[in-house]
Amino acid sequence: MRGVVMYAPGDVRVEDVEEPEILKPTDAVIRLSSTCICGSDLWPYRGADEVAEPLHMGHEYAGIVEDVGDAVTTIKPGQFVVGSFFASDNTCEICQAGYQTSCVNREMLGTTGRAQAQRMRVPLADGTLVATPDIPPDDVVPSFLAASDVLGTGWFGAVAAAAGPGKTVAVVGDGAVGLMAVLAAKQLGAERIIAMSRHKSRQQLALEFGATDIVEERGDEGVAKIRDLTNGLGAHSVVEAVGTQESMMQVIHSTRPGGHVGYVGVLHDVGLSGDDIFMSHVHIHGGPAPVRRFLPQLVDLIWNRKINPGKVFDLELPIDQAAEGYQAMDQRRAIKVLLRP
Amino acid sequence: MRGVVMYAPGDVRVEDVEEPEILKPTDAVIRLSSTCICGSDLWPYRGADEVAEPLHMGHEYAGIVEDVGDAVTTIKPGQFVVGSFFASDNTCEICQAGYQTSCVNREMLGTTGRAQAQRMRVPLADGTLVATPDIPPDDVVPSFLAASDVLGTGWFGAVAAAAGPGKTVAVVGDGAVGLMAVLAAKQLGAERIIAMSRHKSRQQLALEFGATDIVEERGDEGVAKIRDLTNGLGAHSVVEAVGTQESMMQVIHSTRPGGHVGYVGVLHDVGLSGDDIFMSHVHIHGGPAPVRRFLPQLVDLIWNRKINPGKVFDLELPIDQAAEGYQAMDQRRAIKVLLRP
Repeated sequence: MRGVVMYAPGDVRVEDVEEPEILKPTDAVIRLSSTCICGSDLWPYRGADEVAEPLHMGHEYAGIVEDVGDAVTTIKPGQFVVGSFFASDNTCEICQAGYQTSCVNREMLGTTGRAQAQRMRVPLADGTLVATPDIPPDDVVPSFLAASDVLGTGWFGAVAAAAGPGKTVAVVGDGAVGLMAVLAAKQLGAERIIAMSRHKSRQQLALEFGATDIVEERGDEGVAKIRDLTNGLGAHSVVEAVGTQESMMQVIHSTRPGGHVGYVGVLHDVGLSGDDIFMSHVHIHGGPAPVRRFLPQLVDLIWNRKINPGKVFDLELPIDQAAEGYQAMDQRRAIKVLLRP
Repeated sequence: MRGVVMYAPGDVRVEDVEEPEILKPTDAVIRLSSTCICGSDLWPYRGADEVAEPLHMGHEYAGIVEDVGDAVTTIKPGQFVVGSFFASDNTCEICQAGYQTSCVNREMLGTTGRAQAQRMRVPLADGTLVATPDIPPDDVVPSFLAASDVLGTGWFGAVAAAAGPGKTVAVVGDGAVGLMAVLAAKQLGAERIIAMSRHKSRQQLALEFGATDIVEERGDEGVAKIRDLTNGLGAHSVVEAVGTQESMMQVIHSTRPGGHVGYVGVLHDVGLSGDDIFMSHVHIHGGPAPVRRFLPQLVDLIWNRKINPGKVFDLELPIDQAAEGYQAMDQRRAIKVLLRP
C-alpha cells in the first residue's frame, strides 16, 4: 500500500510501505477514507524537530474498519469510524474525567502515527474509535476527518477557555485549529467571537464559522485592540492556537481578570514567569486535546449537518502528491490539505 | 496613636504615628479591635524586598467604624467590620465576577496598609467592608481578623483548586494560609485532605482543621508520596501556599491530569516552561485572593461558630511588642502573631 514517509526536513516521499496488521487483541485495522496533513507535521518538515530516522507520517484519520482483534467488542468490521491522535482505553479514572489524552494506558499516534497511508492500525479500538450511525455520504467525510484532530482540538481550546453564553471569546491563531475554535465558540453559544487574523481567506472562513469581529493587529497592539473592544477589561475567554512565547503572552494579556485562557498550541520554548501570571488573575488550562471526550457530540453534529468543519480543507490531493501538500501548507498557500488514499 | 514602622530589614519599631483621617468621601476610619503580622511582612523583614523608606506596616484588620465619608451609605459608625488587603468598589464588572482584588478602582493596602496600628483609614468603605450582625464577643474577634486575609486567601486557594465533594485535596505549605486552605477544603466538602508539613504543632492544627493525612516529604519525594496515596494518579486539587519554584513544581507534579492547581503563594522568582505545563493537563488558577468575594460567607460561618480559624494565632502580644512578634514569626516559633492595639 502507499504511505507518506519524511526522510529529512523538506523531503517527503510517497512509497510502498508495509500493510498494517493486528498486533494486539485490542487493535483494529481501518481503511482510510481520507487523511490529511497537520500543522504539527510542519515542525519536522521545517527542521524545528529532528528527523533522526524516516518518519511514517500522519495521525488524523477516518475510515472503514477492516479487521479487529479478539478482545474488541464494540467496534465491528464495516463500520465507519473516527479516532484521535492518542489511543485511550476510555475506562480509566482519567478518561472518565474527560482527559483521554492522559489515559493511564494511552498510546500516542503522534507525528509517526502512519495515518497518511491507505490503511492503518489503531490501538485500543473500543476506547479510541467512535462509529458513525451509518456509512456517511462522501461530502461529509472531510468533516469527520476534521473531527479527528483540528475540530476536536479547537473545541477543547474553546471549552478550556470556558466559552459560552454571554462570553466574549478571542482566538489567537488563524490556522485550522484556531478556525475550529471559532466554530466551537459559536456552537457553545458565545456572544461575541473575535478572530485574530491578517489573511483575507482565513478571515472569510472565520466569519463563516461564526466570528463577529476580526482583529489584524498582533502582540501588544493586538492586546490593545481586544481591550478597546471589551470596555478596557479584556475578553472573558481567549484561545491560544499558535504555541509561541509571543502568542501566549498576547493571550494572557488579552484575558480579563477572572477570565480563562485555553491553550492548544504546542508550547515550543515558552516560558511564563510568576509575575506574568500572578497578577493576571486568569485561569490557564490546555494541553493535548482530549478529542475523544468530544467525538460523540461532534459526530452527531456533523452527521446531522449542524456544522461543516470540512470547509477548513482548502486543498485536496491524491496521496501520491503529498509532497505538494506539505509545500502548500509550509508556504501558507493552503490552510489544511486533505489527502485521498 | 501607636503604629508599627519597619525602618530596615530586621528593624521594626512601634512609634507614635499620625492619626488617620477621612481623605475621600468614600473612606471610613476604623478603630482596630485586633491586627496581626502577615507572612508577606517577612519578605522586607528578611531583606528579600527592599525597604527604601520607613514602612507603615499592616494590611489585616477588623474593628469598629469610627467615622465615614459623606459618600458612604451602607457602612455606619459603631459597626464591627472586616475588610481585606485590597479596597474595591464591589460594583464593577470584575468585582461582580468575584475578582475584587482586580477591581477597576482597587486601592492596594499591601505591606504598607497601616493596619498594625490603633486606627486606620479604609478606602472605598462600602465596597470593601463587611459588617457583622452585631458587635462580636471578644473570643471570636481573632477569627474575624483571620477572615481579613489568611482565611480568605486559603479559601480562595481551595476554591481555585476546585476542592469539593469526592475530591482528594493536597495542600503544599503549612503556614497560616496553608492551614486555612485545609479548613476551607473541609468546609467545601473534600473527601480527603492531605497536609504537607514536617512541623508537629502545624500538623496538629492541620488535623484539627480537617486534614485526613499528613505528608512530611518535600519535592520529588513529596510528589511520590501523594501519588502513592492516590492510586498513582495524583490529587484532584492541590493548593500552593508557599510561592517558590520548588513548591510550585511540587504542586503541578502532584496534580492529576484534568486536576486543578490553586496558587496563593506570591510567586517570587518562579518560572514555568511550556513543557512543565503542556503535558501536565492541569488547570492553573490563583493570584491575589479576592477575599471580599468570600467575606459574607466567612463572616456568617464565624458568627455562627461553625469554624474557628482564630486558632491559627498561636502568639498574642500588645502592639508595643510587635518587634518580638516579627522575630517569633521569622524564627518560625509562631505560626501567626496577633497584636492587640
